[in-house]
Amino acid sequence: MSEVEDYDYDLLVIGAGSGGVRAARMAAATGASVAIVEDRYLGGTCVNVGCVPKKLYAYAAHFHSAFEDAIGFGWQLPGAAGFDWATLRDNKTSEIKRLNGIYQRLLENAGVNLYTGRAELVGAHSVVIRNAQGDEQNVSAQRVLLATGGWPWVPTFPGSEYALTSNQIFDLERLPERFLVLGGGYIAVEFASIFNGLGSEAHLIYRGELFLKGFDNEVREFTRQEMSRQGVQLHFNTNIEAIEKTPSGYQVTLTNGDQMEVDAVLAATGRRANVTGLGLASVGLSLDENDKLPVNEHFETEVPSILALGDLIDTPELTPVAIAEAMQLVDVHFAAASPEPLDYTRVPTAVFCHPNIGTVGLSEEAARAKFGRIRVYRTDFRAMKHTLSGSQERTLMKLVVDDASDVVVGAHMVGDDAGEVIQGIAIAVRAGLTKADFDRTVGIHPTGAEEFVTLRTPN
Amino acid sequence: MSEVEDYDYDLLVIGAGSGGVRAARMAAATGASVAIVEDRYLGGTCVNVGCVPKKLYAYAAHFHSAFEDAIGFGWQLPGAAGFDWATLRDNKTSEIKRLNGIYQRLLENAGVNLYTGRAELVGAHSVVIRNAQGDEQNVSAQRVLLATGGWPWVPTFPGSEYALTSNQIFDLERLPERFLVLGGGYIAVEFASIFNGLGSEAHLIYRGELFLKGFDNEVREFTRQEMSRQGVQLHFNTNIEAIEKTPSGYQVTLTNGDQMEVDAVLAATGRRANVTGLGLASVGLSLDENDKLPVNEHFETEVPSILALGDLIDTPELTPVAIAEAMQLVDVHFAAASPEPLDYTRVPTAVFCHPNIGTVGLSEEAARAKFGRIRVYRTDFRAMKHTLSGSQERTLMKLVVDDASDVVVGAHMVGDDAGEVIQGIAIAVRAGLTKADFDRTVGIHPTGAEEFVTLRTPN
Repeated sequence: MSEVEDYDYDLLVIGAGSGGVRAARMAAATGASVAIVEDRYLGGTCVNVGCVPKKLYAYAAHFHSAFEDAIGFGWQLPGAAGFDWATLRDNKTSEIKRLNGIYQRLLENAGVNLYTGRAELVGAHSVVIRNAQGDEQNVSAQRVLLATGGWPWVPTFPGSEYALTSNQIFDLERLPERFLVLGGGYIAVEFASIFNGLGSEAHLIYRGELFLKGFDNEVREFTRQEMSRQGVQLHFNTNIEAIEKTPSGYQVTLTNGDQMEVDAVLAATGRRANVTGLGLASVGLSLDENDKLPVNEHFETEVPSILALGDLIDTPELTPVAIAEAMQLVDVHFAAASPEPLDYTRVPTAVFCHPNIGTVGLSEEAARAKFGRIRVYRTDFRAMKHTLSGSQERTLMKLVVDDASDVVVGAHMVGDDAGEVIQGIAIAVRAGLTKADFDRTVGIHPTGAEEFVTLRTPN
Repeated sequence: MSEVEDYDYDLLVIGAGSGGVRAARMAAATGASVAIVEDRYLGGTCVNVGCVPKKLYAYAAHFHSAFEDAIGFGWQLPGAAGFDWATLRDNKTSEIKRLNGIYQRLLENAGVNLYTGRAELVGAHSVVIRNAQGDEQNVSAQRVLLATGGWPWVPTFPGSEYALTSNQIFDLERLPERFLVLGGGYIAVEFASIFNGLGSEAHLIYRGELFLKGFDNEVREFTRQEMSRQGVQLHFNTNIEAIEKTPSGYQVTLTNGDQMEVDAVLAATGRRANVTGLGLASVGLSLDENDKLPVNEHFETEVPSILALGDLIDTPELTPVAIAEAMQLVDVHFAAASPEPLDYTRVPTAVFCHPNIGTVGLSEEAARAKFGRIRVYRTDFRAMKHTLSGSQERTLMKLVVDDASDVVVGAHMVGDDAGEVIQGIAIAVRAGLTKADFDRTVGIHPTGAEEFVTLRTPN
């Protein structure tokens, strides 16, 4: 039942990604009448061209080293393993279609009305929805939630039109034998590892000194060494000057003068708010200097009936953050609850390069700047598996401790399943536990993770 | 410098396993004069015939499923993978020799005197050491630490002399095509999974209703299902009546009348205190009804100059526990420190069967008995990897919460890398964090571990 009879819905959500779908479902569960508009695919970036296919491809890439590792354990493969890109791609597509269907059923079962089309704001409570056939429909709602997320951004340079984005890379016709990614963020690093693992010659081009800016410096340097050792060709302090199409591929010229021919170029050069055609200006809204939509602590824009969350606003661009925001927003606006504010510090993340990175809290550098006196506990070692595999791969683990309070303010790992290991550590870091709390915990032997509770001597 | 000039050493440690070596090194670091006696191999059970080779063989066994899983990700193997037992065994032996050498150098560098031989107590401060050549030597010390650990125990039945123990199983001449393990503890479960993964026909025989007594019942049942699905043949409520040697193997007769022929029988039927020939009676010491040596909170036996730790005493039989006891003992007796008492509750453990089990704190049953009103949060799901691998393997995760206090009193997992995941969770459980603390933590997407912070609805 609508509480205000003048509107078609209590809530209209624009964008059926992780945040939008969760908000729609949870609001509907409170009894609100809810609709959601999506023009592309249910599940948004995460399900369709982000987290999910990326993780699946990272799994695929990791088998490469499993085949090599197995030999030291007595396994004998009758010949080199082959890889068929189309099998991976099509199995990925089937899985994503399955997930799209799950999202659709979740929305249907929650009683959320689904509009297929593109929405444009035409008032504080009104949107017009246009579908692919050009039909228009006006829909009104007491509250409109903007959850359109982000969209890949590519700089303009000669030949930049040949660069693919993460929206296309999963669905290439064939595996590029020679692959180049431009960028220094986590997406660039992940795809360099993925294509290297799948057998491509893989280049990463980044204009800065070193990739993964903002991560702990030692984590960045360790990852550089590991990726290099595995064969990823890292080109720092340079940029793409131009891409030319050739009969056999793409000729890439770098600003340092180097040239290389590759079969695919991926631009992982950032993402921007996905607001084209959304009609922000028509209701008096605009993005700030960070390309984000300003909201207050209740996710209200300057037009109070219009809310926003997820990658559109200036909070960490992560699926679990968007979902937490969705639940918070519904609590405040539809359940009349007063939840504690979200804490955007100490949000754990993983980078699914090879080896994985897992991290929570402050880097050593940020902790030193904030606390002055800190203690750093670190270890790097060859994981037990690699004593027999013969792989030279190493694992890095690191705790950053505020010396005055003994609180563990950062935990970092580069190694197998770092995301899986750091998740539990993140509960401890989020709760403000001390190094003494870590030390009191008995290790699970033999694991890699036990190192996090047996680090005795600071550097 | 010895503080009491009458004795050869301040501390004489009998047994160079995990606990003994750590105690010797740490005591020496305080300036004490220290010796250690070992008649077999440095590193004890864990390094030589326990944790380390077990984990290496478990890795080997897991590759089997990796080869199958890879197919759904586009990999094509040119034929069936072969397995050569001798390669695994000999690479394992090389690695363990390397570890033995590391232990020797650690002791040497700490200034610990190493005696090779078997020690027998002949007084409150005196032992006699006999080496393989029959030479005898008397050594005295202000304190004697008994750290001889455990030894496999096999019940007596017709043909029980044909049963191997974990001391022999790693070094078999060849892979048993048909393998049988007797027992229901973690060692039995692990070896059943290992030989199944390496390609053997694997049987587990256990007299009880279900293996892994003391673990959460749902964990036990889930593990039973997963191991059965993978092909391990589980025979509960029965026992071995007799083993007969035949020209082609060993004929095993069960108490339920079933018979089977196998190539190797492993008895994983428990471990007992390793005190044969130790001379306990000569100094007035004896084991209690649990086959353990009684000690007070300072690890002192009834003869105050004789200390004991690890598997000899009635605390969890785990390497990290023995190590924690060693450090505690040295703090108290050699560093004049007053550390907080060790907490033997909430000690996390893993079972390296396939899939792995990781657990910390109370089972649902134990929590209900202790707290009355509890909340149980659980999920079981197919891990993302298996959406493409086609494997039907599932993962179980479970939190047990004391309803009154909201404290998470138990966390349990069956699934890939459960030990790695539970280690961080164990810090939170050890510190007494609440379900609200778990809920406040943002998930790392996509991981399996994120389920532990996104369980919203109790059963």
